Amino acid sequence: MDKLSTNKHISGQFNAELEDIRNRVLAMGGLVERQLEQALDALGSLDAELAKKVIDGDHKVNSMEVSIDEECTRIIAKRQPAASDLRLIIAISKTIADLERIGDACVRIAKAALEKRNNNQQPLLVSIESMGRHATRMLHATLDALARMDADAAFELHKEDARLDKEYEGIIRQLMTYMMEDPRSIPGVLDVLWAARAVERVGDRCKNVCEYIIYYVKGKDVRHTSYEDMERDLHL
Amino acid sequence: MDKLSTNKHISGQFNAELEDIRNRVLAMGGLVERQLEQALDALGSLDAELAKKVIDGDHKVNSMEVSIDEECTRIIAKRQPAASDLRLIIAISKTIADLERIGDACVRIAKAALEKRNNNQQPLLVSIESMGRHATRMLHATLDALARMDADAAFELHKEDARLDKEYEGIIRQLMTYMMEDPRSIPGVLDVLWAARAVERVGDRCKNVCEYIIYYVKGKDVRHTSYEDMERDLHL
Repeated sequence: MDKLSTNKHISGQFNAELEDIRNRVLAMGGLVERQLEQALDALGSLDAELAKKVIDGDHKVNSMEVSIDEECTRIIAKRQPAASDLRLIIAISKTIADLERIGDACVRIAKAALEKRNNNQQPLLVSIESMGRHATRMLHATLDALARMDADAAFELHKEDARLDKEYEGIIRQLMTYMMEDPRSIPGVLDVLWAARAVERVGDRCKNVCEYIIYYVKGKDVRHTSYEDMERDLHL
Repeated sequence: MDKLSTNKHISGQFNAELEDIRNRVLAMGGLVERQLEQALDALGSLDAELAKKVIDGDHKVNSMEVSIDEECTRIIAKRQPAASDLRLIIAISKTIADLERIGDACVRIAKAALEKRNNNQQPLLVSIESMGRHATRMLHATLDALARMDADAAFELHKEDARLDKEYEGIIRQLMTYMMEDPRSIPGVLDVLWAARAVERVGDRCKNVCEYIIYYVKGKDVRHTSYEDMERDLHL
């Protein structure tokens, strides 16, 4: 075997490894997306069994994070990647940390579904569920942008988070009014408040993943920068 | 210059780079620690000017995160580190993400200090401040363990977080009682609730950093594992 074909072989293996790790992140994203959908289903229908299933399922998300992270380190040590290959590994290792935290948010939402509720609280849960569906669409689109490594889509999604934040603020106001009108409901409503906050954090996590996509594609760290700067970086 | 001395030179430079990046993380940790202390001072004395100073100071924390992260990537690409050198870089790049989030928690605490409060709310703020001092000590000890890369200290601190969580639960109960007794106070008390949650999250972040210290020293990812397993890994 001459040197060139050895290199080709090695590079072919390396590409396969990168492809494999990308697929694993997308699989982890798919699992987290299902967890989020089921947590919201459980909250909407107060289905305790489904809620428990989501809570039990979180360990799968956790172990995917650990094993993908291990693989990232192994690839860095073995392949000594540079430039865009290295950026891909870094983007992936950051993405899985955010996906894992979305998994934690799903547990938080599922726990709110386990509490006994009186009928008066139903409208609150409907609001959270609706906001949650918005967050689910955002997560789905983010995973889609990640699969295609689409920086433009990531930039649009990044802006979407502000709308989710607005929806969240409205819900918090609604919860405050509710508590003020019926102070005995406060302990139960606080669970709903934590669930609302968990949903809002899903949007933040998606925003983070969008930043990693832009980092990978454009080679530019856009965290903590304004939209104007980000847009300029995108179209350079 | 013969090959050996070139290698020595390169390795000496590499060591200097690793040393430099460790120092930068510790400097970032020191800054975050000051931010936390000042945010709690501001909350305890309702000092709006100090609170604003903390909020304005967060951009320094953010830019340190970005520049240290960039340096981590540069070192990986240029030096192709393996084994413990690579673990050090990975531990650092994860640590700065948690430090940055502690910085965000400081902003949240400082914001609660900006709200107008009636005298009745003073006891609530004292509870948060006291819990905050506990979190500050935990952060200080975590940074100390990081400076010495002391896995045993990291393990002890990791357990400490459970005590902070207990303190947090007590405060939440106190806040609930307060809101139930005086429903008009609810909007103001919710700010205090977010501040309490931010303090509780500081403990979680410290716990994460402790896990990275153990990862660096022992070469073992102990996230999502039980104390028993962690202790076994530590003493293998």
